[in-house]
Amino acid sequence: MALPIEFEHVLAAAADLAGVAHRTPVVTSREADRRAGAQIFFKCENLQRAGAFKFRGAYHALARFSPDQRRAGVITFSSGNHAQAVALAARLLGMPAVIVMPYDAPPMKLAATRGYGAEVVQYDRYTEDREAIGREIAAARGMTLVPPYDHAHVMAGQGTAALELIVDAGPLDALLVCVGGGGLVSGCATAAKHLLPGCRVIGVEPAAGNDVQRSLAAGRIVHIDVPETIADGAQTQHAGALTFPVMQARVDEIATVDDADLVATMRFFFERMKLVVEPTGCLGAAVALAGRDDLRGRRVGVILSGGNIDASRFSGLIAAADREVVSAPD
Amino acid sequence: MALPIEFEHVLAAAADLAGVAHRTPVVTSREADRRAGAQIFFKCENLQRAGAFKFRGAYHALARFSPDQRRAGVITFSSGNHAQAVALAARLLGMPAVIVMPYDAPPMKLAATRGYGAEVVQYDRYTEDREAIGREIAAARGMTLVPPYDHAHVMAGQGTAALELIVDAGPLDALLVCVGGGGLVSGCATAAKHLLPGCRVIGVEPAAGNDVQRSLAAGRIVHIDVPETIADGAQTQHAGALTFPVMQARVDEIATVDDADLVATMRFFFERMKLVVEPTGCLGAAVALAGRDDLRGRRVGVILSGGNIDASRFSGLIAAADREVVSAPD
Repeated sequence: MALPIEFEHVLAAAADLAGVAHRTPVVTSREADRRAGAQIFFKCENLQRAGAFKFRGAYHALARFSPDQRRAGVITFSSGNHAQAVALAARLLGMPAVIVMPYDAPPMKLAATRGYGAEVVQYDRYTEDREAIGREIAAARGMTLVPPYDHAHVMAGQGTAALELIVDAGPLDALLVCVGGGGLVSGCATAAKHLLPGCRVIGVEPAAGNDVQRSLAAGRIVHIDVPETIADGAQTQHAGALTFPVMQARVDEIATVDDADLVATMRFFFERMKLVVEPTGCLGAAVALAGRDDLRGRRVGVILSGGNIDASRFSGLIAAADREVVSAPD
Repeated sequence: MALPIEFEHVLAAAADLAGVAHRTPVVTSREADRRAGAQIFFKCENLQRAGAFKFRGAYHALARFSPDQRRAGVITFSSGNHAQAVALAARLLGMPAVIVMPYDAPPMKLAATRGYGAEVVQYDRYTEDREAIGREIAAARGMTLVPPYDHAHVMAGQGTAALELIVDAGPLDALLVCVGGGGLVSGCATAAKHLLPGCRVIGVEPAAGNDVQRSLAAGRIVHIDVPETIADGAQTQHAGALTFPVMQARVDEIATVDDADLVATMRFFFERMKLVVEPTGCLGAAVALAGRDDLRGRRVGVILSGGNIDASRFSGLIAAADREVVSAPD
């Protein structure tokens, strides 16, 4: 059966994004290599426009709208980074945007989304269905819904992060990519497996929200409750109908990371690399920095997916981790 | 009277540093430009080796040691970043290093200095004289003392930060540089005034430790008590005998910034630019981001001098600032 995206779609997205998205830097660190026992290449999507890789997919999807679609505008639902990405892309392309966001989305993400000129509609993510709300507004206003991951243009756009990483870093033996709904990893796996068929693609989920890991094991999309994790970008309840078959075909493995390791990894980036990476953005790096026998001596790419975290929230997570360490039994 | 350094000395330092120091990126931000009402070019010395510009001066000074000096090694005193810089430079050049550091130096800086293989000797900065301790050990072990700022090679090495910034960013109308003992600003002013005679060089000190501002006004080096400021890299008590005349000749003005503005600036870099900049490193940026009439519409360079701050200390400063905001009167 044909899959929703192929490498040529990633290339088409790259053409749309040229001169619009940042070609983010690939950075290295002797200390990271020492901890990993491998050569690590970090793709800094935390330095992407609007602070995350999401701008790639959102802009590519909106750039493909017809003139009629542009006039009516775009609607989406998102826990944060996709919201800002769509809001910014809509502004750049001169179209109206409505964003459906949870009440408990990080304040910085709410403010940034409104700052880009989008209309924000809020909902309770524990009791309401954001997809239903989105579809309702879309129908009422004639707007086009661009969901955060289950959309071929979105997936293809996200894949340009891996395309750039491989072009800039050279051959990789493995690629670590965080997994929420699977948009980033399906796009990146499509690019990586075409360019480097032997590259092992490892998706990484929060341990508390390993729905994709379970789905791949079960051979069908497993739905879970909203997972409790600090990785707010990966609090998805299920993979997408489009992302799942791509992950089945092109992702070799799903690893998981707990919240304590995400905080430790944020601290590593802060102190050693002077970079702000949000919890979700640390998923892949946490696996790399823990060291894995099968990655020893290898060339490993890691997507740092985003950097959108309030200084106050970061401060709270670090303070809580410090208290944890102080009160740990001997 | 001849000044201790000229532009040719900065060029000589640049040759020593080529391929050894990082050519750190110059970054820009639409939001920074909006706040400043100017075009701001940030020179990211927080991404320099050992996390601060100090590596430039330290490496250049040590690279100029004679074979005998290399064998006996280097000694220095520093509240932090110069310590790490000398330790790393000594390791790269294969010589022993002793670092005299205060007991209350940030733990991350103590650990990093030892991590580079240097021997650390600690002292009480409120009661003991670090320069005397340094001279004593230097005499006893035949080591060469490389002070943190009052040294021609150190000053010339620091100037390469401004040289690179101007080469990469193009003409600048003003340059903002933090001031502790004056090593960085004297080197940078020497480079800037030679390349761009019309460029206004503005040194920036913590308001609580404005000894250089007072010294330039008085026409002589004013000594102050250890200033209480979070800008630990600028807790110097007086300018140097070598840095002072260079600052008199080439620095146009000294501005000051209080600690609350440094925390707000750290938060700006964290949230908007995903960069970690330590309090001292925020001095120049705090002036730029506050907006100044005489900089409006201008091209302004800002040296971000370093990024060495523990996540725990950052977290404490942000939490304290948040409490301050919450408890502020209406």
